[in-house]
Amino acid sequence: MTERRLPTEAEVRGYLRERRNWGRWGPDDEAGAINLITPAKRAAAARLVKSGRSVSLSRPFPKEPGPGNAFPAQHWMRTVPRGRGGFAADYYGIFYHGVASTHLDALCHTWDEAGMWNGRDPAKEITFDGATFGSVDRWAEGIVTRGVLLDVPRHRGHPHVTLDRPVHGWELEEICRARGIRLEPGDAVCVYSGREAWQAAHPDTPYGRPFGGAPDRPGLHVSCLPFLRDHDVAVLVWDMMDHMPIGYDVAWAVHGAIFAYGVALLDNALLEPLARACQDEARDEFMLVIAPLRVPGGTGSPANPLALF
Amino acid sequence: MTERRLPTEAEVRGYLRERRNWGRWGPDDEAGAINLITPAKRAAAARLVKSGRSVSLSRPFPKEPGPGNAFPAQHWMRTVPRGRGGFAADYYGIFYHGVASTHLDALCHTWDEAGMWNGRDPAKEITFDGATFGSVDRWAEGIVTRGVLLDVPRHRGHPHVTLDRPVHGWELEEICRARGIRLEPGDAVCVYSGREAWQAAHPDTPYGRPFGGAPDRPGLHVSCLPFLRDHDVAVLVWDMMDHMPIGYDVAWAVHGAIFAYGVALLDNALLEPLARACQDEARDEFMLVIAPLRVPGGTGSPANPLALF
Amino acid sequence: MTERRLPTEAEVRGYLRERRNWGRWGPDDEAGAINLITPAKRAAAARLVKSGRSVSLSRPFPKEPGPGNAFPAQHWMRTVPRGRGGFAADYYGIFYHGVASTHLDALCHTWDEAGMWNGRDPAKEITFDGATFGSVDRWAEGIVTRGVLLDVPRHRGHPHVTLDRPVHGWELEEICRARGIRLEPGDAVCVYSGREAWQAAHPDTPYGRPFGGAPDRPGLHVSCLPFLRDHDVAVLVWDMMDHMPIGYDVAWAVHGAIFAYGVALLDNALLEPLARACQDEARDEFMLVIAPLRVPGGTGSPANPLALF
Amino acid sequence: MTERRLPTEAEVRGYLRERRNWGRWGPDDEAGAINLITPAKRAAAARLVKSGRSVSLSRPFPKEPGPGNAFPAQHWMRTVPRGRGGFAADYYGIFYHGVASTHLDALCHTWDEAGMWNGRDPAKEITFDGATFGSVDRWAEGIVTRGVLLDVPRHRGHPHVTLDRPVHGWELEEICRARGIRLEPGDAVCVYSGREAWQAAHPDTPYGRPFGGAPDRPGLHVSCLPFLRDHDVAVLVWDMMDHMPIGYDVAWAVHGAIFAYGVALLDNALLEPLARACQDEARDEFMLVIAPLRVPGGTGSPANPLALF
Repeated sequence: MTERRLPTEAEVRGYLRERRNWGRWGPDDEAGAINLITPAKRAAAARLVKSGRSVSLSRPFPKEPGPGNAFPAQHWMRTVPRGRGGFAADYYGIFYHGVASTHLDALCHTWDEAGMWNGRDPAKEITFDGATFGSVDRWAEGIVTRGVLLDVPRHRGHPHVTLDRPVHGWELEEICRARGIRLEPGDAVCVYSGREAWQAAHPDTPYGRPFGGAPDRPGLHVSCLPFLRDHDVAVLVWDMMDHMPIGYDVAWAVHGAIFAYGVALLDNALLEPLARACQDEARDEFMLVIAPLRVPGGTGSPANPLALF
Repeated sequence: MTERRLPTEAEVRGYLRERRNWGRWGPDDEAGAINLITPAKRAAAARLVKSGRSVSLSRPFPKEPGPGNAFPAQHWMRTVPRGRGGFAADYYGIFYHGVASTHLDALCHTWDEAGMWNGRDPAKEITFDGATFGSVDRWAEGIVTRGVLLDVPRHRGHPHVTLDRPVHGWELEEICRARGIRLEPGDAVCVYSGREAWQAAHPDTPYGRPFGGAPDRPGLHVSCLPFLRDHDVAVLVWDMMDHMPIGYDVAWAVHGAIFAYGVALLDNALLEPLARACQDEARDEFMLVIAPLRVPGGTGSPANPLALF
Repeated sequence: MTERRLPTEAEVRGYLRERRNWGRWGPDDEAGAINLITPAKRAAAARLVKSGRSVSLSRPFPKEPGPGNAFPAQHWMRTVPRGRGGFAADYYGIFYHGVASTHLDALCHTWDEAGMWNGRDPAKEITFDGATFGSVDRWAEGIVTRGVLLDVPRHRGHPHVTLDRPVHGWELEEICRARGIRLEPGDAVCVYSGREAWQAAHPDTPYGRPFGGAPDRPGLHVSCLPFLRDHDVAVLVWDMMDHMPIGYDVAWAVHGAIFAYGVALLDNALLEPLARACQDEARDEFMLVIAPLRVPGGTGSPANPLALF
Repeated sequence: MTERRLPTEAEVRGYLRERRNWGRWGPDDEAGAINLITPAKRAAAARLVKSGRSVSLSRPFPKEPGPGNAFPAQHWMRTVPRGRGGFAADYYGIFYHGVASTHLDALCHTWDEAGMWNGRDPAKEITFDGATFGSVDRWAEGIVTRGVLLDVPRHRGHPHVTLDRPVHGWELEEICRARGIRLEPGDAVCVYSGREAWQAAHPDTPYGRPFGGAPDRPGLHVSCLPFLRDHDVAVLVWDMMDHMPIGYDVAWAVHGAIFAYGVALLDNALLEPLARACQDEARDEFMLVIAPLRVPGGTGSPANPLALF
């Protein structure tokens, strides 16, 4: 996958069909590539912690309305007296998928015409009460694994990915080679594309819009799919997401890794501080902990992923 | 604090006044006892991970209404077609304080007549937009430390704490001695009281009610306050909470550790599986990770704490 | 229908099958019995206004949690400064069906094995985005008609209907006869059963529970169905609802009037003040105005129905 | 007030100070100008109903996100099986103030440096649980009165009001004279400014933004205040709102009628169909019914106002 050549339409379809992981962990498996994160893998991840520095990969809870935040998160306060004291409590509400909130996608989140993860039928599995297959509570024990940063701006010498130059699978390979990174099954790959710098350079352009026609936007090309599959990546943590337009006649580009490979996506991560920490610590790897809310039937979860050095 | 004697009213007031940590980390400090969790402490916690077993300390997101869940969490689904495929997304909404949801209390959550953490005035700091002091986003980098289980049912040989026998500070000391546990500053103490077993034995009695008169309920006695302070505990993780009635004329019993000592409380934890894991692994300590949502001005956060062995 | 005899199972099925109004206003009609409320009917209703007294038939927005209010309505406040002044604004949120909130049921709200109103299939018409047939916005211009009070407590000489004595269709006929009331097509019948008095007499018994097993409760017997059909009632306004258990093997008793006859139900009305006003004014009829929120695809609406004398 | 001259700063302050209605209905009055709507006034309004035509003045519940709808209303569906049938229910949630939703403003909604309606202090009356003075439930019995349409586009011969030509008080007087309209105390004045036509002509310009800097926008000039006061208007129903910028150093322009005069504002009404109906019926007056939700402590209510001809 290191040849610098755009895949053909047939090849892209092949990414999502021939190479898919359906049945790999049994026909009823709901954990997907998270199966690659064994206890031994978690223990190895913990051994990466040296300095004890902790970095949050979460953007703030997106309460402010705006063109890039069509459904602002709700935060409502209440105070209640109690004896001669009292307490403050609050309500949080969020429609967390989209481009504003740092969140995890569960395996039930996306599908194409062939179905959901492991071949399930969304018309049966997605109900008014939640998803009955591949929901986020299948990962209740958290996602704890080795995280590896692939820093595209640093590699390119430009503060952010641009619309005219998507991130390709071969570029991710090049970054690994250049940095001496060897990926292992079950790793969480954190692809930093410089979203904050891009947004600062385009203050009036939202990175995405809700529902319907997504705008053009910079990000990862569908050619990243085989990269994820070749390396048995379990988690993709990213700040920019799929490059748009996709350029191929598929419903989903990199987001197809959810239903095809069983990969967990951690969307809208805040990776600028992580990139800085990796430079400070002169490291590209760390322990990554994602602790999704334990929502029965949930399609994902807002999250505050932590990188520990 | 190992004398088995109920404190006097004056002593209890002393817990909350003379021994408080106000100013200990500076007059403007908003992190409280979490300051005790240094990078070195985090690194040491990571070194506790051996087998890689991960245990969630979270109850399921409390969607079901009922006498013990006066404000059910909201979970609403939507599906959206996209090309020949589609996606499912959902809304989560929760008024998470109370007795139903596993959640973290921030330092702004409680106060008594002397004020909030570090002496701040709730009338000034608690606004309609959120708290301006001691909010949960001060702990955005997560709480990563050594967790220690104090298993009261195991110690007592009875499946759950009962109303007529609260957990006292001296009992926690006894458990530490019996188990050979040495607490260190910055530890997270997990006090397991057998809440699930208690609920199963009292199926029609809610553990608490919203606002106004709390019902009688088993839990931790105010005498646990000096235990927390003596050992410089940073986090209290518990399944049962303050024994009610308090029995003293104070607004808050163990919940006073929030504003008096700057301790983080992790309420309504699910500790039965943790107790089982500790027995299986023949250990009482583990790496604990709490990753609160990064909500500006928030008074706490629903959370899925992870214990790593 | 004035014979005091319980209907057979076959007769009850007949109420919902043989007598249904499907097709009566065309195969695609979504307004149901509200078609009976012509402009002339509305004008006649307005002519009933004499004294100008206005009575609200709405209970307060059910914010308080409790056994009879499993999903409390949300009311969250915010204040915002503006120049040297400011403003207060608030959020209202409500899952309004059930027994706590005064609300209107749209024609898409209920169905049995034969389908929704006019024979539509709920699997097709009820989507994640709302109902595509028989939604409340089909009644956007409001429901304005003659209201008639049938006061059961007054008729019985007992402050409320009891579980051992449901309201039967023949009793409603008797009340009409006794009071000299002549019903006309398109009328809104307000059946007052003394719910407040009943609740006061049974303070710990909720009138209903969410989902699943409804408790036994006093109310209107399925024998009221032919009463509604015989008189071409357009709207049923009631404080108590279907007597439970139904006593017949049907999914819905009086609530079957929605899908079988196209009748609008106004559930959990506050009728005690209306009953008092009718006595004061020595009248049984009035102008009734129901102004549902104009929610595209909505299954009903919280409402504040007004009776004008 | 028919002189075509812009008021001075001092005159505008005089509108809000010298002419205010504080104390007019007693120092504790919470109903404001709605006191002018007596039972006799309601009865007279009902006598205006001739043809029985009903017109909704409500825009659809604003579910769709967009630049003019920063906080989209929530509509979430659920279906629940029941026997061999089932039901559909839904949740409505709305932060209804702003420019998207048709809603009523209660007297507690706005204030300036002199205070709220009747001189109350917002710091005392606006609590986390709702307003304790001037809340919408003071109007629980509904607002039923004579409605009068003032059709600015028809008067001007232009489909909508423009930014360079605000609606002034003297223009409203001219419309009354031209149409032979005599206003009476307690009337609801419906000022149609052609908002739909304006929006169609400016598809990318939102009529307003949430919080902070309001954009320039066409609407009613502060000179309309004395018009409302001179005629003892009880309710202002409008599609466009205050012209922005105000042009005077006051926190509120026409919205000042709330706290100064006790007038009920019905914001974001849909008046185009009303204007059409008035032309069809060759009338300028009708019975108007506004039935706000009965929310204790609420600052207003989404509403579906009905005009009956």
